[in-house]
Amino acid sequence: MTQSPTIHRIAIIGLGKMGGGIARNLARDSRFDVRVFDLSAEAVARCVEVGATAAASIPDAVSEADLVVSSLPMPAHVRETYVGVVPHLTERAVVMDTSTIDPDTARAVADLVGEHRFVSCLLGKGPAQAESGELPLFVGGASDALDRLEPVFECIGDTVHRLGTVEAATAFKLVSNLIGMTNLAVLAEGYALCRRAGVSNDAFTESLADTGAWSYQAEVRLPWMIADDFDPRFPVSLGLKDLYLALEMAARWGMAAPVGAAGMSQLASAVANGHGDCDVDVILEVVDPLRSARDR
Amino acid sequence: MTQSPTIHRIAIIGLGKMGGGIARNLARDSRFDVRVFDLSAEAVARCVEVGATAAASIPDAVSEADLVVSSLPMPAHVRETYVGVVPHLTERAVVMDTSTIDPDTARAVADLVGEHRFVSCLLGKGPAQAESGELPLFVGGASDALDRLEPVFECIGDTVHRLGTVEAATAFKLVSNLIGMTNLAVLAEGYALCRRAGVSNDAFTESLADTGAWSYQAEVRLPWMIADDFDPRFPVSLGLKDLYLALEMAARWGMAAPVGAAGMSQLASAVANGHGDCDVDVILEVVDPLRSARDR
Repeated sequence: MTQSPTIHRIAIIGLGKMGGGIARNLARDSRFDVRVFDLSAEAVARCVEVGATAAASIPDAVSEADLVVSSLPMPAHVRETYVGVVPHLTERAVVMDTSTIDPDTARAVADLVGEHRFVSCLLGKGPAQAESGELPLFVGGASDALDRLEPVFECIGDTVHRLGTVEAATAFKLVSNLIGMTNLAVLAEGYALCRRAGVSNDAFTESLADTGAWSYQAEVRLPWMIADDFDPRFPVSLGLKDLYLALEMAARWGMAAPVGAAGMSQLASAVANGHGDCDVDVILEVVDPLRSARDR
Repeated sequence: MTQSPTIHRIAIIGLGKMGGGIARNLARDSRFDVRVFDLSAEAVARCVEVGATAAASIPDAVSEADLVVSSLPMPAHVRETYVGVVPHLTERAVVMDTSTIDPDTARAVADLVGEHRFVSCLLGKGPAQAESGELPLFVGGASDALDRLEPVFECIGDTVHRLGTVEAATAFKLVSNLIGMTNLAVLAEGYALCRRAGVSNDAFTESLADTGAWSYQAEVRLPWMIADDFDPRFPVSLGLKDLYLALEMAARWGMAAPVGAAGMSQLASAVANGHGDCDVDVILEVVDPLRSARDR
């Protein structure tokens, strides 16, 4: 047996808001030789500008790679991509999927790729932190593979949380969004009720911070909600997908999540009302669309 | 017109966990002469010990009072009590209700007692802060009456938040519990799912704190939930009552609160399962009663 080789050549598949930021940080790092693949020529160009090489195809990207990184929208994309990737992987390659997917898909991909070299690396926060290389990372998988990835985590991440298996890491990410978005949904309900009762925005914010109702979502999104600022830091369409996966997971496992299901339903209502591309704080529009008219 | 007189004689009706603590802080303060009334002789005795005078009846308690304070379980108790109190009030008396009640009841009592001298003073946190005189206070009502009450707020409270009308203050309190308890309910769902997925308790707590799912309830109640510690800091029965009032208010106003309604339903399930006297974190038992058996 040889010593596990250092990671030098990296293939990155999927250059969206998260994958693109990760690719650019790795491409700028002199330790790595980065090859990128995406269906969007523009997304590829933004990585080539900072030192990445454009791959002609997925086999071209991965065939000499020490590490394959994927960042894709849905579980089915991840599964299909790795069916195409596996025949071209070198013996030494490790695989790191950063897509928000369900535990069953993560397990299937780990089995396909090889348990010993597959890592689930779920990303906290959003595109701004992907771009600045300050992502909270929630990782699971074989500990040897995780150890080999430390220089990569250091380049793209801020904190690294080891959750255990790939199932544990993927479940954790879905759950953190289930909780966060549901906290946001009930915050919108409470804000609308207090506005109806004549509580001023400043008094509401300052008072809520002194109660057991305070949360990260209140801290970050309440000011945007108050300002009708629906600029998509985290679009409803993505939030709905994550909560859908969380509740599908709960149902498969025979676990109850009725409050999270109500939160998901509010995100679906926001999409049904044409707000899918807005920030998740647009959930206020679903709860209280007539608030401005009522204030007059 | 005379200058508003200083508050010296205080009548306190209702000496439960919150009212009792308030009464004891006021009784210990040499600025105040405190008369107390409660149906429980034991509750009265605990206040007499620290300097309060036991009143023989509600008229006896309130007839010479500069201030009447009430702390009662349900809106109907507050309304009925003031029907009995009003004929015995002096001209100079102000009235402060600290009960968690709905805005319509607060409005009815303000009209009965006189708008100019009625204050709603809602209490944040719990019995420990009532006892130590460090309650967050959420107040509404006539500003002259609020100004006269400043020495009282200073004795029993920590921070004073002026919300506007009595409706605004009562609505805010109901809403803060609606949000807090619903945050707790979805936290229980997420914790159960992650436990099922094999995430350790320590990894769950530490990782969640690095996501948009963090909240006051996670900070305070997640450790109790993990430890199966259901000691009633805030009993389910009281939480259910508050959420019921919040949702009744929402329904009367024609406002949507489906996520909060799901949270209330989980508290009702906890009562239905015989956990009404446990802390609200017992909601975990509703979501995942078989967790210990599964862990083995």
